[in-house]
Amino acid sequence: MRKISFGILCFSMMFTGLTAQSLKSPDGQFEMNFSLKNGVPFYNLKYKGETVLEDSKLGLRLFKDSNIKFNTDLSNANDKAQDLNYGFEKVSDKRDSKNETWQPILGEKKNYINNYNELAVSLNQKATDRNIVIKFRLFNDGLGFRYEFPQQKNLNYFVVKEEDSDFDFPTDMKAWWIAGDYDSQEYQYQTSNVSEIPAKWATSYDSNASQTPVKDAVQSPLMLKKEGKQPLYVNLGEAALIDYPASHLEVDAKNFKFKTHLTPDGQGAKGYIQTPFNTPWRTVIVSNKAEEVLDSKMMFNLNEPTKYKDTSYIKPTKYMGVWWEMIIGKSQWAYSTADNVHLGKTDFKTLTPNGKHAANNTKVKEYIDFASANGFDALLIEGWNEGWEDWFGHSKEFVFDFVSPYPDFDIKMLNDYAHSKNIKLMMHHETSGSATNYELWADKAFQLMNKYNYPSVKTGYVGNIIPRGEHHYSQWMINHYRRIAEKANDYKIMVNSHESVRPTGLSRTYPNWIAAEAARGTEFDAFGGNNPDHHTILPFTRFMGGPMDYTPGIFQTKLDYYFPNDTRFVKTTLVKQLALYVVMYSPLQMAADLPENYAKHMDAFQFIKDVAADWDDSKILGAEPGDFIVTARKAKATDNWFVGGITDENKRNFDLDFSFLDKDKKYEAIFYEDAADADYVNNPQAYKITKKVITSKDKIKMNMVRSGGFAISIKPVSK
Amino acid sequence: MRKISFGILCFSMMFTGLTAQSLKSPDGQFEMNFSLKNGVPFYNLKYKGETVLEDSKLGLRLFKDSNIKFNTDLSNANDKAQDLNYGFEKVSDKRDSKNETWQPILGEKKNYINNYNELAVSLNQKATDRNIVIKFRLFNDGLGFRYEFPQQKNLNYFVVKEEDSDFDFPTDMKAWWIAGDYDSQEYQYQTSNVSEIPAKWATSYDSNASQTPVKDAVQSPLMLKKEGKQPLYVNLGEAALIDYPASHLEVDAKNFKFKTHLTPDGQGAKGYIQTPFNTPWRTVIVSNKAEEVLDSKMMFNLNEPTKYKDTSYIKPTKYMGVWWEMIIGKSQWAYSTADNVHLGKTDFKTLTPNGKHAANNTKVKEYIDFASANGFDALLIEGWNEGWEDWFGHSKEFVFDFVSPYPDFDIKMLNDYAHSKNIKLMMHHETSGSATNYELWADKAFQLMNKYNYPSVKTGYVGNIIPRGEHHYSQWMINHYRRIAEKANDYKIMVNSHESVRPTGLSRTYPNWIAAEAARGTEFDAFGGNNPDHHTILPFTRFMGGPMDYTPGIFQTKLDYYFPNDTRFVKTTLVKQLALYVVMYSPLQMAADLPENYAKHMDAFQFIKDVAADWDDSKILGAEPGDFIVTARKAKATDNWFVGGITDENKRNFDLDFSFLDKDKKYEAIFYEDAADADYVNNPQAYKITKKVITSKDKIKMNMVRSGGFAISIKPVSK
Repeated sequence: MRKISFGILCFSMMFTGLTAQSLKSPDGQFEMNFSLKNGVPFYNLKYKGETVLEDSKLGLRLFKDSNIKFNTDLSNANDKAQDLNYGFEKVSDKRDSKNETWQPILGEKKNYINNYNELAVSLNQKATDRNIVIKFRLFNDGLGFRYEFPQQKNLNYFVVKEEDSDFDFPTDMKAWWIAGDYDSQEYQYQTSNVSEIPAKWATSYDSNASQTPVKDAVQSPLMLKKEGKQPLYVNLGEAALIDYPASHLEVDAKNFKFKTHLTPDGQGAKGYIQTPFNTPWRTVIVSNKAEEVLDSKMMFNLNEPTKYKDTSYIKPTKYMGVWWEMIIGKSQWAYSTADNVHLGKTDFKTLTPNGKHAANNTKVKEYIDFASANGFDALLIEGWNEGWEDWFGHSKEFVFDFVSPYPDFDIKMLNDYAHSKNIKLMMHHETSGSATNYELWADKAFQLMNKYNYPSVKTGYVGNIIPRGEHHYSQWMINHYRRIAEKANDYKIMVNSHESVRPTGLSRTYPNWIAAEAARGTEFDAFGGNNPDHHTILPFTRFMGGPMDYTPGIFQTKLDYYFPNDTRFVKTTLVKQLALYVVMYSPLQMAADLPENYAKHMDAFQFIKDVAADWDDSKILGAEPGDFIVTARKAKATDNWFVGGITDENKRNFDLDFSFLDKDKKYEAIFYEDAADADYVNNPQAYKITKKVITSKDKIKMNMVRSGGFAISIKPVSK
Repeated sequence: MRKISFGILCFSMMFTGLTAQSLKSPDGQFEMNFSLKNGVPFYNLKYKGETVLEDSKLGLRLFKDSNIKFNTDLSNANDKAQDLNYGFEKVSDKRDSKNETWQPILGEKKNYINNYNELAVSLNQKATDRNIVIKFRLFNDGLGFRYEFPQQKNLNYFVVKEEDSDFDFPTDMKAWWIAGDYDSQEYQYQTSNVSEIPAKWATSYDSNASQTPVKDAVQSPLMLKKEGKQPLYVNLGEAALIDYPASHLEVDAKNFKFKTHLTPDGQGAKGYIQTPFNTPWRTVIVSNKAEEVLDSKMMFNLNEPTKYKDTSYIKPTKYMGVWWEMIIGKSQWAYSTADNVHLGKTDFKTLTPNGKHAANNTKVKEYIDFASANGFDALLIEGWNEGWEDWFGHSKEFVFDFVSPYPDFDIKMLNDYAHSKNIKLMMHHETSGSATNYELWADKAFQLMNKYNYPSVKTGYVGNIIPRGEHHYSQWMINHYRRIAEKANDYKIMVNSHESVRPTGLSRTYPNWIAAEAARGTEFDAFGGNNPDHHTILPFTRFMGGPMDYTPGIFQTKLDYYFPNDTRFVKTTLVKQLALYVVMYSPLQMAADLPENYAKHMDAFQFIKDVAADWDDSKILGAEPGDFIVTARKAKATDNWFVGGITDENKRNFDLDFSFLDKDKKYEAIFYEDAADADYVNNPQAYKITKKVITSKDKIKMNMVRSGGFAISIKPVSK
């Protein structure tokens, strides 16, 4: 008997060794199975016994291994011998697990929990004697996996042709998506079944300052839902995007599959790699509850802790800006009427002022006064520097020097004035996509910021990239954004990057990169409009990887206020704008509207003044992508809570349960609500503000008009 | 009668206005005629009444004018409407002339004469209302012309598709040429008729570290000759190459025409232009005497005087180098046996030394001792910095940091030691073609040089360019070389660039860019060999635009001295190597061989020690491209003369007339000559050295063996 059972044991071990390895999440709810079929690696994923992903292919295709002298050869497109997607044998597998708690420097909660079981499968490609490792981490909220390339005799340098990471779903699903593009994410979200994506793809995007759409592909993070009594929510994403191009997802609509599609450079190469190297993580967040998807911190857990020695300069920031008035066309970035200027040669003092330049001494001082009077930390000023006359559309490499103010912008006087009123000025570095030029000037630009004590910079990448042929999301630019973040840290400067790549949890590793845009923000309310459901989708997609500088807070939503018969308007109620400060997490929050518009609604403006930007705790009280989100957050180092609720184009009630509050405390709550007759089209500014004393036992039905919402600030009643 | 003659006068004036304009050189020997034929601009050129160029087309083809918002559009390849090569009407012409003398900071003569007549034709393209100017300058040694684009309403930004500058010769000619290439000029010169170029083109070049051959095109400067009793020598070149791609010449072998072919970027664009802008000058140097072609300073005259405030740090430099022993394979640049290193991560102290690293403290001190004992100014050390283990062939962007010495190179100690012996160390910045990385590190690199008092840097661009898709000669790189020269001037550093674009007279404007390689230098004697006629062609081609760091002075020409049965050898006699210091003008001159080889021939080495590198006067005593050159030069601020004579694969006599010497002086001359039995294959080191007293009345027949030469140093006899 013993012998037999022993024999069975041996056999089963061998069996395991030869075929599949299984990995379970710490809570046992997830199961991932890895297998080799005829030398090709596959994985699948189950959640609570239900198949999330069927066996899906893994591997990479390469251009000719450049570990030869002379040119890296991109010509042999059809030579498959060097690919890393066939002929593998398993060498070994290594298991590990972790359950740690760590504190983000700025975050939604005081503590983030990083709890996973890991399986690292070492594979050898016999024909080429090359080894790779595929590493899986299974969390209680889903799966992450990546490829690791140890340094080895036959694998030192290579060029990626494509990554063969597939995501094969068993059924059609509902998807919230934007078109794949190498240069832009500033598109309206589409809602359709996966099977309908190709049919809707071509009409899903509008024009952009720089765009290179990827046919039948969608962008990451992608939100998916399998409807049903027990719905399944799935989020496909990417974490720790470093020294590698950003990925898109190619749709196979018939088979409900997604294939990874990396962003190429101008030569068609998708990553120049030197071993040892690890790819970014592919992430699959899964839950039966939409709220748990929003609560997932997997993307941050998959990034490395920061190596920065000093992070004390990294602070949550609430700011106003000389910005919206240019966005809507009331003012201009440019100083003069000239349309062709030469930096270092043109004497801007001699040009004819256009009379609409917003970044002038008088106006900036007015903004400083208002921001100071209302307790803001900083003021952004765009259009302060020479070059805006012809900054866009000419592939002009030397487009800005980032150190030369316009004649009507007294940089010393304005900084002194701001500091005297406890306001910091926020620097603006628009690059016009000319990244090579920005890198040439970055040190001088940051030195100027240090000289005048600017704590942070908003960078911009509007337009086609220089180096010409590179894309906003190709490997070279991914490295550029990181270089700038690291250089900014050398100068103790925080970075808020616009038109940059979407975040992938890198704020854990580069915490001074506190926010990015990388999606369709408030500015598009003036550039064609954001749909009412936009704000209910963004947190499920763009925000999964990190904070967005969405720039909410528009009170004057109708632009005909400025321009007769202008039909443009922000498609929300005023109150929904307030709620966005809670629903959309960012340690960098702008009050984007003009002081004059806030001055007319100081009672509502009070919420923006009060709301925190850094948190000890966050609770997603209710959420459904495309429909609504209700979030409660506890302000850092206080007992104050803030609640925000938003809805899409449909009016909606929400039964708000205050049980998240401390049982032993009484709270004074200020409720900001849509008025009964409020309407985002016809009556957006109608709101009511009421005060109540509440406790954790209270349950209150909140009403939201179409594209409306509510905001609540809650303070303990001092005993 | 009066009326009639008046009428005739008016008519003739109108006639001139409507058709051709004629321009004559100051000496009246050249005539250039400009004409519009059906709106297309043409020019021709006559010399002493003989047609040099028949009517040849002018103009440019453009990609879509990017003076529109959104992307610069390179897609409309077939839309000809925006081209600037049709539909012109003459608006006006302006004439000017100049006769000035200027002093180069370093040069072949004390004074350069800039004497020309100028015709600037203003043209309007009626269909698009765009104006261009074609400016012609006719010198006594030939023609220069360029396109000028004034800033104007309809022409502010555009992208060049191609420049339509043609050179139509009436007959076939003999040509000394190398294959057109976007990335290399390091090819053997071919000698054939223009009509034979296409047949010989494909086999005319060998492999190179980075190359992109341009089919049936040849490189500039191109040397041509029409044989005959009164031969015609023509040199086609380019001057003042700034913010524009380098040009090649496409051959139309049937019609003896050359068409301009610019170097594209990775997108196929040939220059992003913002008006006002002037193209480089196209140059046509013409003479019946080959000597006068070598004597031409037209390319420098067509460049702007320098704007540098301080040029006192720019000095002629004679140097030795830790270099040739790596070139021949006796030593290595790399320190360790590793083949995959990560700068900033790899600890080079822990690597296994390969035992062949030349740039080590002991060896460098020996070189310093020898260079010091023999009166040199500087010592180049290559392979001093981390990264050589995997510097080439991997498109590795972060390949060097230019500030981290290898463990066995004590940068402080060696500089202190060198300075104590009156030697400066010469910095080496090999970029591996990763220009973006070099620009990131340039400031730190130059600061390190200043810290240790390095006066000059040798830069290198071996391998494919990063930004990927750019070429060594595309607009972006042309700007890069200039940016580095200008930045080096900020740090008072001289630049000697290798694998960079050929000079086009820019040393007048950027005098710290004292030399470049940009052709097949001595190193190729170890990489496949330079033909015996190579040195007699280079001065007619590569050298026309500026000094070359050819690195002559190889005494141990047979490499089997180092490696048994090694068949490589330098295809000259030892004496020809001496003559190169005079024949090839450069203010930067290297004694390239190993100290041990000079030590065996100290008597011959004396010439290299004595020869000057900066001159008050130069006389081309005799020359024929591909055959021989004899040059006499008068050392700066002395009465000392140096004469060098070289021949090709044929032995040759030359009747040397010393009438260039001061009539009133007696001179002591040291003659370095091939021994009677010297032979570049069988007996290269056989030489004889004799002293004579000579005067300006002397005439001496000099004998040169095949690929041999002679060198003479001449000093006045002190009374």
